[in-house]
Amino acid sequence: MIHHPVVNKNGETIASAVTNLDIHDIARVSLTYGVKRFYVVTPLKDQAEIAKRILSHWTSGAGSVYNPDRKDAMDIVRVVDSIETIKEQILEETGLQPLTIATCAKKHADSLTFGQLSKMAGNGKPCILSMGTAWGLSPEFLENADYILEPVNGTCQDGQESYNHLSVRSATSIILDRLTYWTNCHGQTSL
Amino acid sequence: MIHHPVVNKNGETIASAVTNLDIHDIARVSLTYGVKRFYVVTPLKDQAEIAKRILSHWTSGAGSVYNPDRKDAMDIVRVVDSIETIKEQILEETGLQPLTIATCAKKHADSLTFGQLSKMAGNGKPCILSMGTAWGLSPEFLENADYILEPVNGTCQDGQESYNHLSVRSATSIILDRLTYWTNCHGQTSL
Repeated sequence: MIHHPVVNKNGETIASAVTNLDIHDIARVSLTYGVKRFYVVTPLKDQAEIAKRILSHWTSGAGSVYNPDRKDAMDIVRVVDSIETIKEQILEETGLQPLTIATCAKKHADSLTFGQLSKMAGNGKPCILSMGTAWGLSPEFLENADYILEPVNGTCQDGQESYNHLSVRSATSIILDRLTYWTNCHGQTSL
Repeated sequence: MIHHPVVNKNGETIASAVTNLDIHDIARVSLTYGVKRFYVVTPLKDQAEIAKRILSHWTSGAGSVYNPDRKDAMDIVRVVDSIETIKEQILEETGLQPLTIATCAKKHADSLTFGQLSKMAGNGKPCILSMGTAWGLSPEFLENADYILEPVNGTCQDGQESYNHLSVRSATSIILDRLTYWTNCHGQTSL
């Protein structure tokens, strides 16, 4: 979950604030779908501190006793300053160069389908699925990513066919479900 | 989204508190997937007031100007005191008796599959998809529902096959995606 570089309402590149519920929701859905690690990316030291304080409450503080299920989810979270650090850590741990997959609410030329990414991830290559906060990942981030995943489009009612303003929590949940559930249950990697 | 009757950590039936982000996230995903109306159910008058104040900020207050997309999503939200009120409102508006579909993180005998519910909803019968807050819908609610939907199970990693502690925001997002996207795009109602 990327807090920088993302864009604000006016398209300017910013660093967004850490949101408590994002960490909880995305840690829980990540563990549910077998994601190895959930990285909270922020270059801001105070924001990283807030995120780490939330995590330690649930992984080793009172929260870990109150709700051990939540501890299990929070245990896979790491707070880092940039995607470069994630790449270095994965390379160090696995010896493999990870792929960066950006997500975006808009369709891009040559974007990956869910089926293609599911197949790619199933081949054992580490994939960094990058979710933008605020108004989404910055154009530079999208350009530097190895791939851009196709957007999550719903099926809207009368006159609202273009509505796709999902929260990062909803989008992450739906994307992980599409990438893993359907493939594992039905073998449909060609969707 | 049901705040009563739901259970707490100890299985006791309670009325839970309204959470701001639940309203935003579920309104957004509901509109994205063509849900006609999103009901926030609470019998507590002060909680209903909080929910209505949040809504009016986004539907007619400063929020509606700041973020018109959010206004569109918030416009489909209604705050009511019980599921009975929802049933009466739907009957009055459509002349049809709606079906109540409960959701639960555990598997129940004779639970509906996503494909079955998708087909049922596609037949024009109004369906009330009921999501529990706190530790889930109460046993009485589940018993009184017309159907219980199968749980959302992910695909978990080593030794954690049973982890399915999703937030109500994640579960709602995934369920709406499974019910509409796959059917509409691929005609797979038999999943």
